Amino acid sequence: MAVNPLPLNTLHPVAGIHLATTNAGIKQTVRDDLLVIQMQHLAAREGTAAAVFTRNAFCAAPVVVARENVAQYRVDYLLINSGNANAGTGEQGLVAARATCQAIAEQQGCDPRSVLPFSTGVIGQPLPVSKIVAALPKALSNLQPANWEAAAKAIMTTDTLPKGVSHQFSLQNQLVTITGIAKGAGMIRPDMATMLSFIATDVALPKNLLQQSLQQAVEASFNRITIDGDTSTNDACVLFATGHSGVVLEHADDSDYAIFLDQLTQVCRKLAQAIVRDGEGATKFITVDVSGGANEAECLAVAYSVAHSPLVKTAFFASDANWGRILAAIGRAGLSDLAIERVQIDLNDVAIVRQGGVAASYTEAQGQAVMQHSEITIHIDLGRGTHREQVWTCDFSHDYVSINADYRT
Amino acid sequence: MAVNPLPLNTLHPVAGIHLATTNAGIKQTVRDDLLVIQMQHLAAREGTAAAVFTRNAFCAAPVVVARENVAQYRVDYLLINSGNANAGTGEQGLVAARATCQAIAEQQGCDPRSVLPFSTGVIGQPLPVSKIVAALPKALSNLQPANWEAAAKAIMTTDTLPKGVSHQFSLQNQLVTITGIAKGAGMIRPDMATMLSFIATDVALPKNLLQQSLQQAVEASFNRITIDGDTSTNDACVLFATGHSGVVLEHADDSDYAIFLDQLTQVCRKLAQAIVRDGEGATKFITVDVSGGANEAECLAVAYSVAHSPLVKTAFFASDANWGRILAAIGRAGLSDLAIERVQIDLNDVAIVRQGGVAASYTEAQGQAVMQHSEITIHIDLGRGTHREQVWTCDFSHDYVSINADYRT
Repeated sequence: MAVNPLPLNTLHPVAGIHLATTNAGIKQTVRDDLLVIQMQHLAAREGTAAAVFTRNAFCAAPVVVARENVAQYRVDYLLINSGNANAGTGEQGLVAARATCQAIAEQQGCDPRSVLPFSTGVIGQPLPVSKIVAALPKALSNLQPANWEAAAKAIMTTDTLPKGVSHQFSLQNQLVTITGIAKGAGMIRPDMATMLSFIATDVALPKNLLQQSLQQAVEASFNRITIDGDTSTNDACVLFATGHSGVVLEHADDSDYAIFLDQLTQVCRKLAQAIVRDGEGATKFITVDVSGGANEAECLAVAYSVAHSPLVKTAFFASDANWGRILAAIGRAGLSDLAIERVQIDLNDVAIVRQGGVAASYTEAQGQAVMQHSEITIHIDLGRGTHREQVWTCDFSHDYVSINADYRT
Repeated sequence: MAVNPLPLNTLHPVAGIHLATTNAGIKQTVRDDLLVIQMQHLAAREGTAAAVFTRNAFCAAPVVVARENVAQYRVDYLLINSGNANAGTGEQGLVAARATCQAIAEQQGCDPRSVLPFSTGVIGQPLPVSKIVAALPKALSNLQPANWEAAAKAIMTTDTLPKGVSHQFSLQNQLVTITGIAKGAGMIRPDMATMLSFIATDVALPKNLLQQSLQQAVEASFNRITIDGDTSTNDACVLFATGHSGVVLEHADDSDYAIFLDQLTQVCRKLAQAIVRDGEGATKFITVDVSGGANEAECLAVAYSVAHSPLVKTAFFASDANWGRILAAIGRAGLSDLAIERVQIDLNDVAIVRQGGVAASYTEAQGQAVMQHSEITIHIDLGRGTHREQVWTCDFSHDYVSINADYRT
């Protein structure tokens, strides 16, 4: 029941990236649950990889291993399984994650530290290493550039739809590609330990510049979505730059870099919004647009206070233009000296709150009409500055409680 | 459907406090919705009053007026209505709140600034001043010391039960009384703009000491409960000290003051817990008990991260001992250098997590058994210090969504 889901348009192959999926029988018996991504390096210039990981202090074993390896070694392979998060598994979990990397290294003759492991699924159960190792030969014999859609499907857990985005654009008079996939599962749901995204481009960027571009793009996309405020133990986003297009970006002040960053940000934002549209139990896609702030931090504090409020979210589920809940969520965001009488709230193009009370022009009929839309922007003007930030979220329904109450049964 | 609700035992009158309730037809047509509380002052020593109010920047008109008056003037009357919060009503709301104070002043011949107004109910609708003024003569002619139970009922909104606590104990060889009432309505629910509590004692305390005692007691009680993390626009707690018992406490270092503060804290804690037990849709009463912290702040950060997590709360609703969600909520509480392998989690007396993974002794049968209880303590030991804090909350059910989605319809 995703809200206006992103159609899975053509996912263009990225030269230098091969993918393969297979069923390892981890939790699924039919659907593929194992994905291998290989980066093929040019002789003249090695490809680079960048990654960002969950900030949760309780992070899964594969996150620990992947974070170590990507910081120090060239990346040749990613190994991703769904169905088991390998989180809350202590020292044994680390041993298990490293064992799967070792298995790829032995079969492919590479350094085990050139493999990054990722897991998504149930917390607290031992990773079935032998099943994964047994399934590897079939996957490794089937690595193909065209397998992005199958890859998007293999990483799904309770996602109702695969999520992928592909952009092609011109850099230095040459067509280049950015293609990415993501899985959410509804949400930031620690035991379905959640968000993964893998993105690749055929542009070449040095590793530090690639890392910088990924951090900036993630900050404006994956770090601007929320369903329930919970942060997963397994969240990760990886970006490859193979360099196979021949286009090279060396410096952040290069004008072509700005184009690349903009395109990368758009891809990340579409993937992030696709996760929210497929949020657990979501019936509405909500943009919280906060302007008139004195700085970025206070715009975000207000946006998240509104986006996390169960009272605001249940009101949207009920199609109730309950502006008192929005105003109260703004009021508790912790801004010093907030003059509530300067705050303005609009829902789409309907003026709701002016000067701390309901707008003179507002009618219940207007409120009812605007709440019928499946895409609603809450415009909040704080009236105390020029900064503006957006956050994306969804409503809070009976199905959210059902999905999360019944998940393990 | 409150969880093991507090029985409304005898609410002892407090000498010097008279109360009256009546129906003003604000939202209710049958049940009383207006409460007047009068403090009668001794000639020899005036009674004192202290108050704490919501920290929400968007606070209701009566909060603005009551905060002003209690800071500067002697308190003679409280005027409380349910059914309308007089919040989000702008400048007109202030005029309305002051008009009701003026009406009492005229009828009783007192200073209008000696009246504190309080409102609870729907946000954003004009306060029906004329209805309140019309109902006042009947209330004012009926002021009685024995009306505490009627008062507890008159301030209810969607509370399923009235909430009151009364303690009698000995100070300076004399029996003294603390009696209090509260209303929650389910919860920290800005549009049912929520928590009110009125407490009185016949002990005499100077105003600054009374304020200090109230702040300490509230910090350990009302400020330790949460249902959904939302903070109301109308929250207020008032404490009267009439002095009619003849017992006088002058200084904080008086040993009898410690006894008084302990009794006051117990009364506040019982009232606060009664609010959680009657939380919207609550089926379980949950104590989050965090020990082994380096300081109070980090214990509370962890406790609230767990107590606010929709994923933890839906798991408790489902009676699912989903320790991964608890561990993940601890991990995202923002503690620096948290060693997750030192964290221990127990549910009541069942060891769940040791060294970052599931406890060796743990069985699913143990987990299922402990989750059948309606009162569950989540013990979290951070293993990095000696501080300990407790927070009280409830689970998150289908009924929470129903109550909050359907409220205005």
